[in-house]
Amino acid sequence: MTGIEANAERALADLYELRRIGAYKTGVHRPTLSPQDIESREWLASKLRAIGHDVTIDGIANVMGRAPGAGPFVLAGSHIESQNQAGWLDGALGVIYALEAARAVAEAGGPGGVDVIAFADEEGHFSGGSFLGSESFVGDVSEAMMDASQDRSGRGSLRGLLAEAGLAGRPRLALEKDRYSAFLEAHIEQGRRLEDDGLRIGVVTSIVAIWQYRITFEGDQNHAGTTRMAIRRDAGKALMRLWHRIEEEFPKIVGPDSVWTVGRVTLEPGAPSIIPGHAEMLFQFRDADQAILDRMDATLRTLVAEIDAEGPCPASIKPLGQSTPAIMAPGPQSCVLEAAQALAPDHHLVMPSGAGHDAQVIAPHVPSAMMFVPSIGGISHHWSENTSDEDLKLGAQVYVDAIARMLSHAND
Amino acid sequence: MTGIEANAERALADLYELRRIGAYKTGVHRPTLSPQDIESREWLASKLRAIGHDVTIDGIANVMGRAPGAGPFVLAGSHIESQNQAGWLDGALGVIYALEAARAVAEAGGPGGVDVIAFADEEGHFSGGSFLGSESFVGDVSEAMMDASQDRSGRGSLRGLLAEAGLAGRPRLALEKDRYSAFLEAHIEQGRRLEDDGLRIGVVTSIVAIWQYRITFEGDQNHAGTTRMAIRRDAGKALMRLWHRIEEEFPKIVGPDSVWTVGRVTLEPGAPSIIPGHAEMLFQFRDADQAILDRMDATLRTLVAEIDAEGPCPASIKPLGQSTPAIMAPGPQSCVLEAAQALAPDHHLVMPSGAGHDAQVIAPHVPSAMMFVPSIGGISHHWSENTSDEDLKLGAQVYVDAIARMLSHAND
Repeated sequence: MTGIEANAERALADLYELRRIGAYKTGVHRPTLSPQDIESREWLASKLRAIGHDVTIDGIANVMGRAPGAGPFVLAGSHIESQNQAGWLDGALGVIYALEAARAVAEAGGPGGVDVIAFADEEGHFSGGSFLGSESFVGDVSEAMMDASQDRSGRGSLRGLLAEAGLAGRPRLALEKDRYSAFLEAHIEQGRRLEDDGLRIGVVTSIVAIWQYRITFEGDQNHAGTTRMAIRRDAGKALMRLWHRIEEEFPKIVGPDSVWTVGRVTLEPGAPSIIPGHAEMLFQFRDADQAILDRMDATLRTLVAEIDAEGPCPASIKPLGQSTPAIMAPGPQSCVLEAAQALAPDHHLVMPSGAGHDAQVIAPHVPSAMMFVPSIGGISHHWSENTSDEDLKLGAQVYVDAIARMLSHAND
Repeated sequence: MTGIEANAERALADLYELRRIGAYKTGVHRPTLSPQDIESREWLASKLRAIGHDVTIDGIANVMGRAPGAGPFVLAGSHIESQNQAGWLDGALGVIYALEAARAVAEAGGPGGVDVIAFADEEGHFSGGSFLGSESFVGDVSEAMMDASQDRSGRGSLRGLLAEAGLAGRPRLALEKDRYSAFLEAHIEQGRRLEDDGLRIGVVTSIVAIWQYRITFEGDQNHAGTTRMAIRRDAGKALMRLWHRIEEEFPKIVGPDSVWTVGRVTLEPGAPSIIPGHAEMLFQFRDADQAILDRMDATLRTLVAEIDAEGPCPASIKPLGQSTPAIMAPGPQSCVLEAAQALAPDHHLVMPSGAGHDAQVIAPHVPSAMMFVPSIGGISHHWSENTSDEDLKLGAQVYVDAIARMLSHAND
């Protein structure tokens, strides 16, 4: 142990207090830049000021609390907005744990300090994708991208909503990468691996890459009564044949943690008496291993080429996005593992993250780590998302212990 | 030969004249009860009055021209409205051939006469299904059904559009079944069977039944990144497995003219990063043979039950409609066949109709027959629908000859 301990009851009380801002059933509704989101950011700012942090809410609504003193410093946090009518812990957990770590380190008199950040719009309410706040923080969001960005639910432009929140014209914070030896983000698992095995802490090795494709089939739209089977060119049937082969071949070539999903299928015109003349599928796979990603990509392309060559419907594939796996840094990751071994012996799992997180944006710039607490039933992105109080408190203790270990190694 | 002959050039000229009402590119736009549709009905009425027919446009816009004299009478016609921005021959062909037959018989001084009917809304512009006019004619449309009926393209209620056309409050015509020994409807084939074999006349044996189903799969909607493959319940994947088995098994049990189609697939929520929790397919098959229909139904239900039993996603099937095959009556059908043998020797085909037609509504009440002319490229329900002038003229000759044969057999 490090001598720095979380006040787990205090962290839990903060989580419950934050849950009241934008409460929706047992979850919350705090879309980015909504009045509730801004209220939660100001609530966090006041908590940070109370422990002597220098707080900024920047021109994209990132909240940054800088610890006083000479360092060393670690960066800690997550996002504070929610998806629409969604859970109370997704994002908020990692922010409150960071706040608790900052307080615990400050109360212990160091060594060093914890800068706390609450990113804006990890959830992707605005066009242009998720991670808006963390990408701005690392310099990947231009003013032109902000000019073009619109809320996906019709609430208006990013610029307009920033103006309503009183944030228009403020400078945007930039990561001072030399200030930090590590970044730590805690999050709910959003899956059932921990729960299914009775485990309580996940030590994240990597955040998977997501590769996504649109696969298109061209046929002949025709009358489903008068066009006999032998002369049909049914784009939907070609799509089904590819899908079936994917489900036959992928299990042979994937890794143990690979996932793949057909999330959307469109047959056009989509009428019961018309043979589909055009069909599309959105296909996605995820893994943290570049070699496995490459193998899945090659297999998929081979299968599409086979269906295309067999006819009668030309098939084509267009990648929509191919991210890079974010490997967690060995040093900070070891600190999380050691903390879990100390506080949750035999009840932790070293595992990849199947979901994306702000840590994947920070990882190329600052050595980064992540830890998970269990999700009851694996549920997330829904108001019924939850984690037991015992797991929430244990998570705070492991988190603070991991931060303390990072600070003690900061000058290694 | 019967001594009664079509004036094929006159019939062709009428088709071209009618084509100008609501012209759209090389096709027409005459949705039921549109100003263009009403204009075409009035145009037909004046053509029929000119040959001494007693003409009524009834309370649902059916146009009926009753031949003078003591009979015997046959009934002839089709529908005159078009689908939106669609072809110039679908429906109109069968009306103009009937007009030409009425004229030719009148000019020949009989025997008997030809009543001509142009049904309303075979194309199903209004809610409640296709065949509105012919179903009204045989007594299958109640006043309550008319009260409830709305245009599917948002043009308003059936009652409102009838009032605009000046038809509100008119009585609706009822079929006098004892007046007729036969009904004949000509139509474009809407398929490629005649064209592919260089044939010019189709002698219809039956109009297929359409059996339609909604098949539903229930899974668990979940995160496509954090939910590992082993615990997924992917409703979309279950749908694909059924679809694949249908395409494997149906070819083993269907008849030579059977067709089957998956026209629509819906995965919910339909997002690339969410495992579908619910999936639906609209599935349809057609055949004119009751035994084959029953076998396809039984096979489909067995396959759904297998997928349901295998898990992990419950599958259920709901019939949306199961029509009865309409068998063409031997007497009138022989008249069409004899006319084709006389005028298009070795260039006709005895075949089922894969599409639905008004004749299927009339067939249970009056002995009915149908004949086809070729569709260029099999295209229909599109403005580019077409048939060569030579085929249109030959069709008129065969049609009139078949009508003359029916009249000469009327008192058999």
